[in-house]
Amino acid sequence: MRSKNKRAETSRAVVLGVDIGGTNTKLGFVDRKGRCLSSSSMPTDSQQPAGRFFKRLRKNADDLFRGLNGKYALTGVGIGAPNANYRKGTIEHPPNLGWEFVDVRAELRKLFNVPSAVTNDANAAALGEGLFGAARGMRDFIVITLGTGLGSGIVANGELVYGADGFAGEIGHTTVDPNGRVCGCGRRGCLEAYCSATGLCRTVQEFICNTMEPSELRKVSYEDLTAQMVSEAAMRGDGLALQAFKSCGRTLGLKLADSVAHLSPEAIIISGGMASAGELIFEPTRSSLEEHVFPIFRNKVRIIPSQLTESNAAVLGAGALIWNVMEK
Amino acid sequence: MRSKNKRAETSRAVVLGVDIGGTNTKLGFVDRKGRCLSSSSMPTDSQQPAGRFFKRLRKNADDLFRGLNGKYALTGVGIGAPNANYRKGTIEHPPNLGWEFVDVRAELRKLFNVPSAVTNDANAAALGEGLFGAARGMRDFIVITLGTGLGSGIVANGELVYGADGFAGEIGHTTVDPNGRVCGCGRRGCLEAYCSATGLCRTVQEFICNTMEPSELRKVSYEDLTAQMVSEAAMRGDGLALQAFKSCGRTLGLKLADSVAHLSPEAIIISGGMASAGELIFEPTRSSLEEHVFPIFRNKVRIIPSQLTESNAAVLGAGALIWNVMEK
Repeated sequence: MRSKNKRAETSRAVVLGVDIGGTNTKLGFVDRKGRCLSSSSMPTDSQQPAGRFFKRLRKNADDLFRGLNGKYALTGVGIGAPNANYRKGTIEHPPNLGWEFVDVRAELRKLFNVPSAVTNDANAAALGEGLFGAARGMRDFIVITLGTGLGSGIVANGELVYGADGFAGEIGHTTVDPNGRVCGCGRRGCLEAYCSATGLCRTVQEFICNTMEPSELRKVSYEDLTAQMVSEAAMRGDGLALQAFKSCGRTLGLKLADSVAHLSPEAIIISGGMASAGELIFEPTRSSLEEHVFPIFRNKVRIIPSQLTESNAAVLGAGALIWNVMEK
Repeated sequence: MRSKNKRAETSRAVVLGVDIGGTNTKLGFVDRKGRCLSSSSMPTDSQQPAGRFFKRLRKNADDLFRGLNGKYALTGVGIGAPNANYRKGTIEHPPNLGWEFVDVRAELRKLFNVPSAVTNDANAAALGEGLFGAARGMRDFIVITLGTGLGSGIVANGELVYGADGFAGEIGHTTVDPNGRVCGCGRRGCLEAYCSATGLCRTVQEFICNTMEPSELRKVSYEDLTAQMVSEAAMRGDGLALQAFKSCGRTLGLKLADSVAHLSPEAIIISGGMASAGELIFEPTRSSLEEHVFPIFRNKVRIIPSQLTESNAAVLGAGALIWNVMEK
């Protein structure tokens, strides 16, 4: 790859955006307008040492870069990963990766001769929406990623909120009910245990045992159940599935009203797999937020879907991270 | 008063800090080191038009300034007031004032020939702690003012969080229980209805009816009861008063754990009248926060008392506001 110093003046600048997931890692080259010029995927294989992963990453990036046929100069590398710390440039005790601790910045310095940055995946999503997506031009907004869990990234005064330790923005682990459902984090009653793909499935099970509502989902085991199945059942008019979405949205709206009381964002952007359920989740979230929010904030905060194509959102977010760093 | 232009070079710069309260308005001259060189108080008298109030303010400030015996130059005016909006420079529908809408910045422009700014009282308190008090040198912190109500000011990335509309930082109106106590704001279950001087008194009444615990407070009517009386009873070992403080602190810690999940502050500073109850309120708040917070934040966030003298805290906060504006 040509580095910035050699060809930046005559070539168009691109950054490498990388999203490290538990199973696969996506990478792609992103220009300043948020176009993903080419992308690919590789197994994360985190049972192998992190150093080996980064060497494979470099090789995959080289292959991908060759496909761009010259014309471009690499100016930065941005990485989104679970439990990544922007301040320290590290990944620490990631829940779905075999690595305990990785000094990402040091690894990247060995392999790429350009500026780099790392942050957690939800923060990267927020930066992506801010630079390329639904939050363009906004200085105060929140991005909620509804996937297996509930991630969040907060932007205030035009800057991502990292907090004192670099780990701010864990709205998924605010408390709905201190005596409520056990969460993957070991606590009880976290928002994520109610509002996420997993939370939705748990709510379906709760309604199966607590109500007499007939439902096609009564035939499905908890292990087999997916949010996608709940969504499809709801679209077919399954009453229990509809109730589960409503409950999920109402809980989300209640807690987002707390987020609004803290931050008064211009908008809350919902992304991730569950956002594709559309009004099934947006309508009860909006109405619950308006019902529960401090009156001064009523009818002010838009709850809107992500404007990034889901398949590229994480790579675009990681790209936005490094574009932001370079332009500071 | 000498304005900046005439004497700033040879005189020491001071700002005028003003705290507009429902009954009285405090004013004082504050230097860059956070010393309140002189202060006084005047009735707010908000039944009279706001224009008249600001003329009286100017006269009182002139009298106070003369007492400084030359040597100083006024370089700015900062105002803290209920429902004040920093972005717009206004006070809008303040709960305890007769004015509906005041363009504070315009009023100040007519009377003072120096830069001015206005913000709500809790935000001013946060700026005061940041510049002169317990949060000096911190870039991420939250200030909670426990008075009649619960106010809050949030600083993230070194800047006060105003949000899209200028009204961010209303942690007192996050929800403890959507079916809980009616709050002054018209909603149910706001944190302020549990954790504030008023909230503490309500909790005492709840324990009087729900428990058989003997207490000297059973002889006091709700109208006569004050947080000070509850505090004094607790210090004498009154079991019900002690329980009320514990309940108040536990609820506060639970909700502050949510604030930490959003913002990951270095510290949470508690100020206002109720903070003088000391460990009665700090101990249960701390232990509940540690119990309820997302594990990644455990043992990281200090909950500490204000370091500003309570009688001057609001004036120092308003002074810090305009010092910050001038130094931007």
